[in-house]
Order: sequence, then structure tokens, then C-alpha cells
Amino acid sequence: MTPDSAALGHVRDRVDRALQAFVSQQRGVLLAAGDDLRPGTESIAGLLAGGKRLRPAFCYWGWRGAGGPDCPEIIKAAAALELLHAGALVHDDLMDASDTRRGQPSVHRQFEARHAGRRWHGSAAAFGMGVAILLGDLLICWTDEMFHASGLPPDALGRGRPVLDRMRSEVFAGQYLDLLGQAIGDETVAGALRVVEFKTAKYTIERPLHLGAALAGAGPAGADDAPSAGAALTGDGATAGRNGGTASGDGGTAGRDGSLTAAYTAYGLPLGIAFQLRDDILGVFGDPVQTGKPAGDDVREGKRTVLLAIARSRATVGQAQVIDRYLGDPLLDEAGTAEVRAAIAGTGAVAECERMIGRHVSEAIAALEGAPMTGEAREALAELAVAATARDG
Amino acid sequence: MTPDSAALGHVRDRVDRALQAFVSQQRGVLLAAGDDLRPGTESIAGLLAGGKRLRPAFCYWGWRGAGGPDCPEIIKAAAALELLHAGALVHDDLMDASDTRRGQPSVHRQFEARHAGRRWHGSAAAFGMGVAILLGDLLICWTDEMFHASGLPPDALGRGRPVLDRMRSEVFAGQYLDLLGQAIGDETVAGALRVVEFKTAKYTIERPLHLGAALAGAGPAGADDAPSAGAALTGDGATAGRNGGTASGDGGTAGRDGSLTAAYTAYGLPLGIAFQLRDDILGVFGDPVQTGKPAGDDVREGKRTVLLAIARSRATVGQAQVIDRYLGDPLLDEAGTAEVRAAIAGTGAVAECERMIGRHVSEAIAALEGAPMTGEAREALAELAVAATARDG
Repeated sequence: MTPDSAALGHVRDRVDRALQAFVSQQRGVLLAAGDDLRPGTESIAGLLAGGKRLRPAFCYWGWRGAGGPDCPEIIKAAAALELLHAGALVHDDLMDASDTRRGQPSVHRQFEARHAGRRWHGSAAAFGMGVAILLGDLLICWTDEMFHASGLPPDALGRGRPVLDRMRSEVFAGQYLDLLGQAIGDETVAGALRVVEFKTAKYTIERPLHLGAALAGAGPAGADDAPSAGAALTGDGATAGRNGGTASGDGGTAGRDGSLTAAYTAYGLPLGIAFQLRDDILGVFGDPVQTGKPAGDDVREGKRTVLLAIARSRATVGQAQVIDRYLGDPLLDEAGTAEVRAAIAGTGAVAECERMIGRHVSEAIAALEGAPMTGEAREALAELAVAATARDG
Repeated sequence: MTPDSAALGHVRDRVDRALQAFVSQQRGVLLAAGDDLRPGTESIAGLLAGGKRLRPAFCYWGWRGAGGPDCPEIIKAAAALELLHAGALVHDDLMDASDTRRGQPSVHRQFEARHAGRRWHGSAAAFGMGVAILLGDLLICWTDEMFHASGLPPDALGRGRPVLDRMRSEVFAGQYLDLLGQAIGDETVAGALRVVEFKTAKYTIERPLHLGAALAGAGPAGADDAPSAGAALTGDGATAGRNGGTASGDGGTAGRDGSLTAAYTAYGLPLGIAFQLRDDILGVFGDPVQTGKPAGDDVREGKRTVLLAIARSRATVGQAQVIDRYLGDPLLDEAGTAEVRAAIAGTGAVAECERMIGRHVSEAIAALEGAPMTGEAREALAELAVAATARDG
């Protein structure tokens, strides 16, 4: 993330403070059950200290773009998305058997180490898994608590609620499709893009924007039925239909509200793809200092990314052999990482991903032009599009 | 559960229908992401087809007791607790490595078998774990969705929200304490009772009653600070303080509302202990047809129950050796089950648990006398107290 992204920094510091206040209050509830809960609360606080706050930023600017005023209440409602995200990350790391997150041991590894270090009874791995499941569950539940305690009026929360609901069903559906794709060995670009649509594009950008808009009174975006990015974003000519469309919400939103929702979709889905492609590249080629994960971690974990699907579709027999040899190898070392990097780059997949990122970011920014939103929000969203997909992650 | 419990049956059928309608609507949302989601939706529907609907029943009668009218909206709000419970069970079975739930394979085992049967890539166990985490997350999120879409007015939902929040933090805290107790080898009766307080008594009975009362307008029970059942319920003389106390909510509830909340606590906490003790006995001595779990499953899983803590505290060296030999043995067979049953019964722990059940149920029913609630609710709650702790489970 570029450090000079004002649109992000503007929100991030206030989101940080709102999260700290919320977690400090929850600590009291948990410690009332027993002081033994302290390591759990510390682990949560540590996890929440990191993160770029992208989802809160998009929610905030979705609200501002729909004419909502700058106020502490929208910061709290937007910050709630960070709790959902943290909970999903704790569970995701467990599913992926990831050792690190945000430069620290992942939650299940923290508690596995705690168990092992104290020579407790039973399996340390099972203990780590159990605690990670429970802390993830807690964080996911706290999303609703913080959202509803944001101080926004009940009618606003009532409008936002279906969007939050839809967003969560979609992200878990996307993760399920991801697991299934890995299991059945789907290595197609289309399959990878479908996962990205639900797991990233809707979850990280489109729905947070829709949530902000709905909270501000701009249409029931949760009930809309926008075209599938997995289908629409693979071709270049698909933009017009989305840009020109209006959200067909069951509340019958039209005019300004409907076209704002549609504009957020037209901006959010291509940007979400670009964001994930940048993440794919960083997952293989990124600097550990910057990513908070060991070098080549996506390869070690065998992640089924769009970058990898493109690489496979273009690989020579020799390049494919190198990729197959190292993908999912938990013992992948520095030399292996270098070899697999060379093979992937050699297919031209990285250059192709960079082209796709550029094209999708341009498409996203173009969708802002003429959209019925405040000028300040348009500028902020253009800035966020660049910041969220920048080479320095 | 006794089949002739009218107070339960009255709610159960309507809760069943509300859940079916909700899940059928969610199926549409999930299948929009891909038809591959179908096995997930079927697994959820199968899991939700079972269950006694105890938490919805207590929520419903908590509402009725506070003067709330019989209406479809409270049924939907109460039914939402069943989604939370189902999600917690999916995660619980994964943490306990349980093979069965409600007479069917547990969710992680279903998907593990699906993976193995189709000879998919990677680890079948990891696939089963991943799907169980995601489906549990979905169910937990749906709690809020169904609750807020119940049709109850926003001010009622606003009053209920903090109780639901508190209830969830408490149940996950209780599960954490349970995991920790197992790890550190806490075999005391007091330790087991503390877990029961949070994991069962508050979660299954007290908070559902408080939620119903709060929805009906009777005091912010989520913010109260009732004495700890773990401390209070081990002695007989502790009842008066709880019965006579009023909830010291930060909203300053007093009089009728405060004493209703206090009466629900005075009824709910001892009944919750009794309910768990019955479950402990069934977990060792129960008929698989009735429990939906293999005979002696709690012993096989090494569960750290109050029954077992009492048995240990009274065991001879010989009885303790038998318990230690079989506890947590995944290969426990029929002969071993018979032997460990004889050892536990021989300590007198079962008879002691039966006495505790009788005493706690009486205490719960006594708390209803003179409490400011409708006569119909008083009768229903007295009936539920008996039904929830009956020998035929």
C-alpha cells in the first residue's frame, strides 16, 4: 500500500481507534468469564493491530459518495467489517495451514505453541485448531455487535443489514468454491476468476461500497442481481452492460440511487480482480517484509490463483514440470522459490497479469466518471483504486 | 425429551417451519454463486431438521412471560438461536473430532467421506475440516440475518441485540474455558461447573429467556451482572440472594422488569446445570437410538464432564484406574463401555448427579413462584424444566 494514500489514511487511523475501543470493551466481557481468557483477548488485539482497513475504507467512501456526512458513526459501522475480515483470516489460516499472518504466527500456531511450550495434555495441534475456531467465531459475531452499536439510526442499519448479510454469504460461498476447486483439481482461469469474484471482488470492494451507500439511503443493494464478474470480466467488451445497468433491487430503486449502486459495481468488480491479481503476484514474488508472509508462500501452500492458472495455460512442458514439482510443497526453500518464480515469469503470466491489472484499474476509474456521486468521493475512490493495486502492495 | 411436552411442541413445529423457509431462501443466495454449493445447502438442511429447539422455546416463553403476544415474529426471532446452535455444533464436532451428530455423520465427516469417495486431490480430512468451518461460519452469520428479518419492530430488536451479543460471547468463552481445562488437566468439580455455567446454563436457558424478555420490553438483561452460577450453585444456601436480587443493568431497570430478569436467572442457571448433568449421564449411559450418538461417546471423546469430575472425586484407586484406562480411548468397545459404566456408577456419582438434578429442578421451579410473569408462561416453564431434564432425554 502506498504510504501517501490520503483516502485510505483518512479512514484508517479512525478505524484503528474505533477497533481498539471496541476490543477493549469486549475484553471486559470475556475476562468476566475468567482471567484465563486473557491470552485469547491478547491474540485478537494483536491481529487487529495490523491490516490496511481496505473494506472499512470502501464502506466509508461508499457512504460519502452517496452524500453521507463525515461522522464517527459511519467509522464504527465500517470498522465492523474489519472484525469480519479478521475472523475470516483466522479461519482461513487454519484451513490453509498457514504459519504466519501480518508478520506474526497465525492464531492456531500461537496457541499450538502455547500448548507445546507448557507441555499440556492432549494434542497441541488440536488445541491450536480449537482456539482458532473459537476466536474466529467470536470475531465474526462481533461484526454484528459493532455494526449495530455504531450509533447509526435504526432505519439506516435496517437498510444496510441485507447488504452485510449478502456479503457474508457470498464470501463463505467463495471460500467453499475455492476449497472445492482445489479438491477437484480445477486449474482453469475461469474457475479461478469465479472464486475471485465472490471471495475478493464482491467481498472486498463491491459490497463494502454498497453497504456504505445503503446506510446512506441509496437503494437496497443487497437484493440486486448484478451480472457475474467471473463471466463479465474475462472479456474487454463487457463493461458497457454493467455500467449502463441499474440495480434491479426488490425495492425498485431507480435513477440516482440505482445508478450509484450500479456504478459501485462497475467500479468494484474489475478493481477487485485487479486487487487479487496484485495479491497473486506478491504471493509468489513479494518481499516478506512487505507481505508479512514468507517468500513464495502461495506456492508453498499450493494456492490456486489466477496468476497460476494463466501460467499453466501458457507453460511449456518444462515450465509445467517445475510448477508441479514445487506447488504445495511445505518444504519449499529459497532455491526452489527462485526456480518456480523463473518458470512462472517465463510463461509470460506475470506480464499478462500486469496488463490485466492496468486494464481493470482503468475500467474501474472510468466507471466513476459521470456516476452520480460527490466529487470528493470520486477522487478518493480513484486514489484507492491505484493504492489498492500498487506494486509495493 | 418427553413427547408430551406441550410447551415445547407448541413452539417446535412453528420453529421448524420458520427454519425451513429461511434455509430455502438462503439456498437461492448460495446457488447463485454456483450449483456446486448444493451439497453444502443439503448438509445444512439435514442438520437443521433435527434438534429439540430448546433455545427457541426458552426465548419464546421468555417473551410470553413478559407479556409478549403469540405471533409469527417472535417465532422467527427465537428460531434464529437454532442457527447459532447448529453452527456451534458443527464447529464443536470438528474440535471434538466427533463422528456423529443427531444420528448422522457430523458435517466434517460427511465432506471428508465425499472427498475420499470421489478420490479428489489433497487431504480428505483437510477438506472436511475446511467445509465444516465454512458452513459453521455461515450458520453463525445467518443467526443475525434471521433475527433482524424476523419482522419484530426495530426498537424491540435494538433491545434484544445486546442480549444476543452477550450470549454469543459467553458461549464461545465457555468453550474456550472447556478446551483450556482439558489441556491443563483440570479435573475439579468447580472447574467443570464453571464451564457448564457459560457453555450451557447461560447459553441454553438464561440468555434465551432474557432475550425474549428484552424483545418484549423487559429490561436490558444483556448488561446485567448476576452472580456466578459456578460459585452460587455448588451450595444449597445460595438461592435466596439470587432470587431476591434485581438485575443491575446500566439502564437502571427496576421493579417488574428487573425482577422478571432476575427470576429468569434464578430459574435458568440451576435448570441449566440440571440439564447438563442429565446430558452427562446420557453421554455415558444413554441409548444410542435416543441420543443420536454411539454408546459411551463422552468417554470415547474424553469429555471433562461434571459427572466425571464427581466420579473422580469419589473413586477408589481401582475405579480411577478403570476410568483413566478408557477415557479418551477412540477404540473404546462395548466391553470397555460396560466396564467404565460400572466403575462410574460404583463411585455413587450417578446417584449424586440424580440428586443434584432433582434439587436444581426444584430450585428452578420454585423461582417461578411469585415471579412477575403470566400464569401461562409460569406453567410452560415449569413443564419445560421437567421435560428438559427427563430421564428419557
